[in-house]
Amino acid sequence: MRNWILPENIADVLPREARQTETLRRSLLDLFGRYGYELVMPPLVEYVESLFVLDDPALNLKTFKLVDELSGRQMGVRADITPQVARIDAHILNRQGVARLCYAGSVVHSRPDGILSSREPRQIGAEIYGYAGIAADVEVIELLVESLSVAGLAQVSLDIGHIGLFHALADAVGLKGDARDAVFDALQQKDLPTLRETTAGLDAGIVAGLLALPTLYGSQGVLERARAVLPEIAGVSSALDTLQALVDALDARGIAYRFDLAEVRSSDYHTGLVFAAYTPGFANAIARGGRYDSVGEKFGRSRPATGFSLDLRALTHLPFPAAAAAILAPASDDAALIAAIRQLRAAGETVLVDLDVRLDESPCDRALRQINGQWQVVSLA
Amino acid sequence: MRNWILPENIADVLPREARQTETLRRSLLDLFGRYGYELVMPPLVEYVESLFVLDDPALNLKTFKLVDELSGRQMGVRADITPQVARIDAHILNRQGVARLCYAGSVVHSRPDGILSSREPRQIGAEIYGYAGIAADVEVIELLVESLSVAGLAQVSLDIGHIGLFHALADAVGLKGDARDAVFDALQQKDLPTLRETTAGLDAGIVAGLLALPTLYGSQGVLERARAVLPEIAGVSSALDTLQALVDALDARGIAYRFDLAEVRSSDYHTGLVFAAYTPGFANAIARGGRYDSVGEKFGRSRPATGFSLDLRALTHLPFPAAAAAILAPASDDAALIAAIRQLRAAGETVLVDLDVRLDESPCDRALRQINGQWQVVSLA
Repeated sequence: MRNWILPENIADVLPREARQTETLRRSLLDLFGRYGYELVMPPLVEYVESLFVLDDPALNLKTFKLVDELSGRQMGVRADITPQVARIDAHILNRQGVARLCYAGSVVHSRPDGILSSREPRQIGAEIYGYAGIAADVEVIELLVESLSVAGLAQVSLDIGHIGLFHALADAVGLKGDARDAVFDALQQKDLPTLRETTAGLDAGIVAGLLALPTLYGSQGVLERARAVLPEIAGVSSALDTLQALVDALDARGIAYRFDLAEVRSSDYHTGLVFAAYTPGFANAIARGGRYDSVGEKFGRSRPATGFSLDLRALTHLPFPAAAAAILAPASDDAALIAAIRQLRAAGETVLVDLDVRLDESPCDRALRQINGQWQVVSLA
Repeated sequence: MRNWILPENIADVLPREARQTETLRRSLLDLFGRYGYELVMPPLVEYVESLFVLDDPALNLKTFKLVDELSGRQMGVRADITPQVARIDAHILNRQGVARLCYAGSVVHSRPDGILSSREPRQIGAEIYGYAGIAADVEVIELLVESLSVAGLAQVSLDIGHIGLFHALADAVGLKGDARDAVFDALQQKDLPTLRETTAGLDAGIVAGLLALPTLYGSQGVLERARAVLPEIAGVSSALDTLQALVDALDARGIAYRFDLAEVRSSDYHTGLVFAAYTPGFANAIARGGRYDSVGEKFGRSRPATGFSLDLRALTHLPFPAAAAAILAPASDDAALIAAIRQLRAAGETVLVDLDVRLDESPCDRALRQINGQWQVVSLA
């Protein structure tokens, strides 16, 4: 038996859950389509150089590496689809205007994000390339919120942050390399003692700003408090202006949100506005997204970018849908029976030919029976 | 630029083709559903021991190997989904009656099957476990034929063979190991000189049967000729009886076929009836399937099995469908506009917010315009 055990944090998706995953996948791709997002399907494996165009050491660590027998070069099994879609936008599609792209597929992580995390998230997401304005962020947030509603999640909290705040403050005190990473990590964990320790001796006004970030949390008056307590430097002001514009647009669309200005937990490649959705019962975000404008530099074609992604399987807390009720039919070469089965299937019915079908293992509630020479559907109840 | 080149025989699927692939994927899964097949989603990676439960050295050769960081054990990226589904039937679902299972997903081959073959086929297929009778083979063949019809393939040839014929003849002359493989390979390539050479000195009656196999080809009278020229041994007779029963059932269903009794080119794990579908313009089969009853032994739970699979991307010779026509809408926080966009999308329309949308790069044929204070859809023609 031992041989058939799956690796840790790897699982089969069995019929009831597969039905739900597939239904949700289709609903979300159709929703993305109604917003004008075009589906692309990047490959499962490609050269590591293209998988790691976005500067994200954590992504590199969780990518399985393979040697390509044909070229001798190192390939990776994708651990995130977003960098692949950015590559497609930059080097394959080469659109002059905006490109709206979406995708759905498995990614593989060599190590799980958490003890209970799957190493094979079913990633689905949507990205906009070529538009720097806030309207693009508004659209992907609106699409994310509608996606979670389609998934049947009633209670969702949307957290919004801006990585530019940290970077502006860190730049202002000249934090670099390991020292900057240490402050970043402390902020990420909202660990104030370490944050004080790692910023000791730096400009007091700026440090006060860094220490204030974790307190700038909530749904009311956060931007006003931020303007009061954060130093008036260019990067800070522009980030706060962006957040103000976003707030106006979200209010116009009736979308609720909370600020979390210490939110820096998104992928390392995010550069500006970031957001994450939470729902009761899940410690981790169920969806994440944000700006990653810097992708342009790496590809040699500078395009602003924003988008979000989520794991379809993380949304499977919903009750599994029942299988469609089915009709049991005898196994026979009778021409009239064959015609009757074809007609029922063409009308959308599920017809199971009775090859040792066990009723307790099947959704059959009706059967095809020959009555007075005619094949008729009768109830099994 | 070089960094962004994909590995050989690996490709992105771009919007037009992705739309077609997705449409076909859904149509086929829905068709499988109407026959009662339940969707399962096995993982992309698992331990090699479970990937190679079916005895198929060719499959092993084309499987990428990885070391699992969590267990230190060797894993593989799946190169075929069928063995995974067989594992699910045997060890996870544990159904007492018949199990009809289907799947759709990418597999990865470390080396391509041919110069033009993709190393990432998008495999879709259906399998029946737990039914040894010919009715199961009839059903999967019927489903295969209907699948190709759904895919819009007008001219399809269905080739049918039975691996049991070769094995019965080879057993009868005691062919084993390398000698048996050499005869098998010669038969596979219909290489008569090598076939004569590799069978020299063996029982003349049986060898005549092996040499006759490549001539037993066509749509009419093949079984009659086979009964005349093949030796009357148990394995041969039972294979021919199976083929006769299949013929009667296919005739009753109006399904055309050709016999190819030297057909042994299916996967190494096939054990009995095998079939392959061909269409003009493609040298290789576009779909393959057959019996692999021996899977029971390997898993310690003996279950007969039959099924078929195909590569969704091999069916993309069809004209790509056009994108749905779309409506262009201004980017604005105007409440009436936001409501109008939501209403159109809820009605199934595609609405693109105008974030630098280029009309020549988009399917927009209409636009939302404010006329006399009302948002209205107007033609862009």
